[in-house]
Amino acid sequence: MDFQSAWTNFWANFGFWSLSALTIIDLIAATTNAFNGALLARRPDHYKHYTVVGILIMAILGGIGGGVARDVLLADVPSALTNPWYLILCFLAACLALVIAFNSGQKFREGLFQFMTAFSLPWYAVVGAQKGLDQLNLVLPALLLGVVGPTFGRYFIDLTSGVTPKLFVRGEWFVGTAILTSVVYVFCALGGLSLNAGMAVAFVVGFTFRMLALFLKWEEPEPWEPADVAAGEAERKPLGEAIREEFK
Amino acid sequence: MDFQSAWTNFWANFGFWSLSALTIIDLIAATTNAFNGALLARRPDHYKHYTVVGILIMAILGGIGGGVARDVLLADVPSALTNPWYLILCFLAACLALVIAFNSGQKFREGLFQFMTAFSLPWYAVVGAQKGLDQLNLVLPALLLGVVGPTFGRYFIDLTSGVTPKLFVRGEWFVGTAILTSVVYVFCALGGLSLNAGMAVAFVVGFTFRMLALFLKWEEPEPWEPADVAAGEAERKPLGEAIREEFK
Amino acid sequence: MDFQSAWTNFWANFGFWSLSALTIIDLIAATTNAFNGALLARRPDHYKHYTVVGILIMAILGGIGGGVARDVLLADVPSALTNPWYLILCFLAACLALVIAFNSGQKFREGLFQFMTAFSLPWYAVVGAQKGLDQLNLVLPALLLGVVGPTFGRYFIDLTSGVTPKLFVRGEWFVGTAILTSVVYVFCALGGLSLNAGMAVAFVVGFTFRMLALFLKWEEPEPWEPADVAAGEAERKPLGEAIREEFK
Repeated sequence: MDFQSAWTNFWANFGFWSLSALTIIDLIAATTNAFNGALLARRPDHYKHYTVVGILIMAILGGIGGGVARDVLLADVPSALTNPWYLILCFLAACLALVIAFNSGQKFREGLFQFMTAFSLPWYAVVGAQKGLDQLNLVLPALLLGVVGPTFGRYFIDLTSGVTPKLFVRGEWFVGTAILTSVVYVFCALGGLSLNAGMAVAFVVGFTFRMLALFLKWEEPEPWEPADVAAGEAERKPLGEAIREEFK
Repeated sequence: MDFQSAWTNFWANFGFWSLSALTIIDLIAATTNAFNGALLARRPDHYKHYTVVGILIMAILGGIGGGVARDVLLADVPSALTNPWYLILCFLAACLALVIAFNSGQKFREGLFQFMTAFSLPWYAVVGAQKGLDQLNLVLPALLLGVVGPTFGRYFIDLTSGVTPKLFVRGEWFVGTAILTSVVYVFCALGGLSLNAGMAVAFVVGFTFRMLALFLKWEEPEPWEPADVAAGEAERKPLGEAIREEFK
Repeated sequence: MDFQSAWTNFWANFGFWSLSALTIIDLIAATTNAFNGALLARRPDHYKHYTVVGILIMAILGGIGGGVARDVLLADVPSALTNPWYLILCFLAACLALVIAFNSGQKFREGLFQFMTAFSLPWYAVVGAQKGLDQLNLVLPALLLGVVGPTFGRYFIDLTSGVTPKLFVRGEWFVGTAILTSVVYVFCALGGLSLNAGMAVAFVVGFTFRMLALFLKWEEPEPWEPADVAAGEAERKPLGEAIREEFK
């Protein structure tokens, strides 16, 4: 390969005009998440004196992380590696986020930008569920992929920043939206709707639900709190003793 | 695919009667780990105000995590995605764990339930070592997979909860049991024992060892403690200075 | 397979004399990183009362982690599982690091040993970029793999130890060196240089840059600090309110 052929190869396979609808949706979702990731990395609770390069990498991790996890689970080479647009768009989104002043960036992130993430979340879910149904022919694993796609980018960012991942705590039905969208899509697909119709229905349901959750501050239920949550864990006992106590 | 064919497909391929012994062992190990994971997520040192959905996902992560990591390393689609029983059983186990009241749950978890996890740990190790030998034809990588299978579900749970992973600290020979079981299994397999005989021998050795470690509180050795563990890290020096100091 | 054939198989395929140059470079990089990992796990800021077994596993994680992540992204079975030398050498390096007394070990790690890690970092980058170009035929994904290879072992160690990953914070151009080396290699490869020549050029550039950064304490730039980094995050508002504030 030389420069000439690398260039030709790039445009022949990856000009925008040759991208499928599913790929474009996946790209939008990745780009939005990368932008979100770069702003997130600068939010006080996530910020850990990251460098400029660090924030760019964090944005890429957040942008393609969910799709990469989904494709690795399918034992595919991730789309983010076979199509250069993912890295290009994630990189540009991260640069844009870095340029926007921080405070206005955070306001933007929690204001109008929520429409964009609420927009990309169900698309990511639909792509995951669709790939799962297509390659695995099984309902539950398809739902799992519909959840992994939109949420694992954020999972990686939260782990890296030492923050409890949003996936597991209250986040205005962040995971719930992914599950709901995937379930609706799978129902539509099994019910015989065409790809496009099923995607449209699932998207509308997921987007509406997420918007309502954001505007009305709907939150996931938490189970009752463990009694001794502040007390920390008691010292481990030998198993014999633990069993005797269990029967007391 | 429609509802009818999804249902037929499910039962034709995944009725319990059609599962191999290895798959059933893998399923038991995953289910036990999922139950364990849900109780663990509610233990004070792990609990981070998880939602109900968060605990269900944590249980699934703990249940299928080890097997997924093992299969991803083999570049296979994880069994948890090609066989729907994994997700079904992990989900049911997690629901059960949520229903059990917390305090009795923790007593159960540290009492009789230890038999179940001690039971599943060596099975998970045997399945990993067996898959490794079978697909890689190499001893050391097979041992690695025999360790990844039973321990990585817990690794993911601990990372997610911000707790130092049990894999690396004292845990009554948690990893040690996985290593021992894998070594015994590989020895049996290379020594010419049949699959079933080798699995039985390795299981008995691993289970007995784990039980002894739990009843007698055997712990892994820790190396001597770094002198300045409390002092934190000294400021980084330019390399030239560091080398001069090294030679002093 | 029995002991005899396992032994024959081992030497037939994996005697040192049969290893390619690329594999030998990859092995050196993995071994150096494993040694580094074991010393790192005992450094006060990383040390979390790890057991001896825990430190060995940490070393293996650090040694093969980057290569495994790279190969998983390519949907290959990782080289560390198809060639037993990776695990053997990482294990030996970890044992050696454990034997070296801690204090002299840390001095060694921050002194002369920096030459070894500065030596392995660009090799790992070159192998990643080369594999990427070869299998993906795309420039940007090749650069990504050139970064993942040398840095993800450290990423896993830092995550496990609960330390902000070096990838994202100041580290005398740790990631920068990986990026630079990969870019130079890809340029050479596209420019028509032979494999060996391209690797040599990229290595010399990367190694020199890393050495200069270490001796002269060059650091990555940090973007301006978020104003309210100490204040923590404000409470989430309903979306309607957030948008109104955005427009104020």
